[in-house]
Amino acid sequence: MSVEPRAEPGPAPAYDTANIFARILRGELPAHKIYEDDKAVAFLDIMPRAAGHALVIPKAAARNLLDITPDDLAHVARVAQKVAKAAKAAFAADGITLQQFSEAAGGQEVFHLHFHVIPRHAGIAMKPPASVMETPEILADHAARLRAALAG
Amino acid sequence: MSVEPRAEPGPAPAYDTANIFARILRGELPAHKIYEDDKAVAFLDIMPRAAGHALVIPKAAARNLLDITPDDLAHVARVAQKVAKAAKAAFAADGITLQQFSEAAGGQEVFHLHFHVIPRHAGIAMKPPASVMETPEILADHAARLRAALAG
Repeated sequence: MSVEPRAEPGPAPAYDTANIFARILRGELPAHKIYEDDKAVAFLDIMPRAAGHALVIPKAAARNLLDITPDDLAHVARVAQKVAKAAKAAFAADGITLQQFSEAAGGQEVFHLHFHVIPRHAGIAMKPPASVMETPEILADHAARLRAALAG
Repeated sequence: MSVEPRAEPGPAPAYDTANIFARILRGELPAHKIYEDDKAVAFLDIMPRAAGHALVIPKAAARNLLDITPDDLAHVARVAQKVAKAAKAAFAADGITLQQFSEAAGGQEVFHLHFHVIPRHAGIAMKPPASVMETPEILADHAARLRAALAG
């Protein structure tokens, strides 16, 4: 029975400054923002797996869980909790599903660290990832609900 | 277009001290532990969705993301990152999938907060949740690999 750890498979890929969340952070792309502080931003996923599906990201240039600083990660987790509590209130959710995907094999599609915060209702499955684009009007309504709950 | 937040749906359910992770924390049930500090413990999921699937939990009596203190959550996130990096090395993983389920509607089955840290390999889907019980021998081997990587 081998218990030797295998070798680490090479260095982590570099951060890509052209990823869409980096562009949102620079103001080059719009987003339905619901929260912002000096280290993190939260906004709606435009292809939500359920109403109110939000993304929480660090402002730091972190690719994913494997390269973010522990302090930045801890802060993103705190913000994800704020968003989860607000989402539960704003959408009368029965539960929350939190997900974070690191590298393509882990499910990651945009290479800036993000936590998915997904309000859930009993008996209702999540839509498949990135399956249906939500309308701007509904996203604006859901963002307003979440901002109100976060302020409340 | 309504933007009024709905009312919060009642108080959170109480923490159940008989849940199996509370029993593991009290030493009443065994576990393949890979990490422990004064505030958190990590051990293997006995029905792994992929080899090396670990769970990170706070020692505090927290039901899920909706009632854990922000400080305890931040600590659990830091430990989850340590475990993720170790898992990537120990299993030569291509990526990591991180999940946290809050309340049954969110996917939660054991009502003590836990983060799933799942090593992933390109092209290999996760097994369904809680589908196949792993053998104690393989769990012991995987736990030893993870402990070695965490110590390295």
